[in-house]
Amino acid sequence: MAPVRNGRHLFNEVPTGYPVPGKTTVYDGSQTIDPDTVPLNGGFLLKTLVLSIDPYMRGKMRDPKVESYSPPFLIGKPLENFGVGVVIRSENPAVKAGDHLYGIFPFQEYFVETDPKKYRVLENKEKLPWSVYVGAAGMPGQTAYYAWKEYSAAKKGETVFVTAGAGPVGSFVIQLAKLDGLKVIASAGSEDKVEFIKKLGADVAFNYKTTNTREVLKKEGGIDIYWDNVGGETLEAALDAAHPEARFIECGMISAYNATEPYGVKNLMLVVAKQISMYGFLVFRLGQKYEEEFYRVIPAKLASGELKYSEDVTKGLEDVGEAILSVQKGTNKGKKVILVAEE
Amino acid sequence: MAPVRNGRHLFNEVPTGYPVPGKTTVYDGSQTIDPDTVPLNGGFLLKTLVLSIDPYMRGKMRDPKVESYSPPFLIGKPLENFGVGVVIRSENPAVKAGDHLYGIFPFQEYFVETDPKKYRVLENKEKLPWSVYVGAAGMPGQTAYYAWKEYSAAKKGETVFVTAGAGPVGSFVIQLAKLDGLKVIASAGSEDKVEFIKKLGADVAFNYKTTNTREVLKKEGGIDIYWDNVGGETLEAALDAAHPEARFIECGMISAYNATEPYGVKNLMLVVAKQISMYGFLVFRLGQKYEEEFYRVIPAKLASGELKYSEDVTKGLEDVGEAILSVQKGTNKGKKVILVAEE
Repeated sequence: MAPVRNGRHLFNEVPTGYPVPGKTTVYDGSQTIDPDTVPLNGGFLLKTLVLSIDPYMRGKMRDPKVESYSPPFLIGKPLENFGVGVVIRSENPAVKAGDHLYGIFPFQEYFVETDPKKYRVLENKEKLPWSVYVGAAGMPGQTAYYAWKEYSAAKKGETVFVTAGAGPVGSFVIQLAKLDGLKVIASAGSEDKVEFIKKLGADVAFNYKTTNTREVLKKEGGIDIYWDNVGGETLEAALDAAHPEARFIECGMISAYNATEPYGVKNLMLVVAKQISMYGFLVFRLGQKYEEEFYRVIPAKLASGELKYSEDVTKGLEDVGEAILSVQKGTNKGKKVILVAEE
Repeated sequence: MAPVRNGRHLFNEVPTGYPVPGKTTVYDGSQTIDPDTVPLNGGFLLKTLVLSIDPYMRGKMRDPKVESYSPPFLIGKPLENFGVGVVIRSENPAVKAGDHLYGIFPFQEYFVETDPKKYRVLENKEKLPWSVYVGAAGMPGQTAYYAWKEYSAAKKGETVFVTAGAGPVGSFVIQLAKLDGLKVIASAGSEDKVEFIKKLGADVAFNYKTTNTREVLKKEGGIDIYWDNVGGETLEAALDAAHPEARFIECGMISAYNATEPYGVKNLMLVVAKQISMYGFLVFRLGQKYEEEFYRVIPAKLASGELKYSEDVTKGLEDVGEAILSVQKGTNKGKKVILVAEE
């Protein structure tokens, strides 16, 4: 086989505010690779099939001197995030050609890797599209599943408020909450997303851009659980609407990711007065406890349609910058995935 | 016995900002009572010995239309808080003359009560001063003991930061943390208080009015547990200094109680990024689990000197207003108690 293009999408510049496609990140199609002959040195060659675009990636677009929970992207190097790829060749007995691996991938069409422990071999008995394994059956689904199990202490008849309810995490949480017999209030930023949320079974769905969150929560009689994907003023409204002993699951604060002046939350005294527990968490912390259960239970429920999901696919590595921006602005129409290659 | 004065300290006006002695609350010495003849109607007559002055009382000085965890004081009625009194006469078989009762008392020298279930009969085998039963052996000590047990998940060698470290709750927490083998950083607002904190065994004690909290926490290498009595900017500094998986015990936010413009906490995204758990709590919520253990263990340790405490006694109901203000401003010299009467 002759050398083929090995396209990459590189981190190029730390953004101020929202990332700028073609400036913050750039596509580079200048490299080539010969999949038949590239030396493996005891490792294995992966062909990238799908890559995930997630809100938390904004936090990795930072000055590397700033410490945070996830390592920064490096200027001039490919972006990295969850992906699925197929093994083309292998010199490591732990993986074989044709295996599908899930884990952290560089934004690159082909790459040689040496450590199979960094990946999970996907069985996919259910024949789900591989893209689902970076969404509902991957990190976002795990985020929802693990933290709901660990922190919600959900009791039938309680009320939960889910922000970013049409996103891959929020949409999963809504369905878990309905399975547990809760009343679900969920918000999103467009009428299309609100329609999707209603299809998931939410009892109350609203567009936070046209409807006042605070008024909805008050009218609905308050909340027992808050699933926070946004932070800021919405967190303040949720504190005001919380019942005593409410649980706040702090999954993300997208309102702060692109803000140059972060919003100050003024009513934290309610954490004391209402005896609220707030749980910040990162999905990997809970993996040991719930991962095997997740892969045993969830792909089958997704395949049968018992659990619903929604995808917004971008084809090719060229448009990764636009995909990232759409997720930060919330203009995506479902879980954002990059389809890098068909098999 | 002839009628005697039955002095009271009344709530008079909702304060804006700090309470104003003689205006927010007023002393009334015009009533009398005859302890020998006052009708009991099946109840019992209590003579108030000591009353507690606590920071949370500020929250009860509000417009009764504002809902909160603790009922508001009523204008023209006596203040209420934890106290100890002695039974003078009783028509209820559950209590007898000479019993000492602990519970919520009106700020009044004598009163007839009907429900013995509202009080705990204190044995006091240790012969502690009754005032200790509204401090280290009462609600503030219980606050420290219950929440430290329930939420700290303290591990030997970890570091805790305790604010209001010279107060009745903070000083108790410092000692519990040292017993658990932790490094203790504690702050207070005067040099006298810092000296007291050092005597309690804190490894690092500082005056937050003259030393920068943020710099101390950084220099000491960060924190695993934060005992929050103050909120606001100090909470922000603690979030910045927190290690991953830190526990924040949210006991109070005195910086907000008298503020007309509450401070906005801008770095709550760190709750997610550092996987912090924040626990808001009220002491009564945990009583069922820990109360009997507390009374079995703590008074003896206080009597033996194994646990230390400090008191600042005001004699008589006349100066309750000044006592309340001193606790809000932090100018008191120890647990503030009102000595209403000797036995």
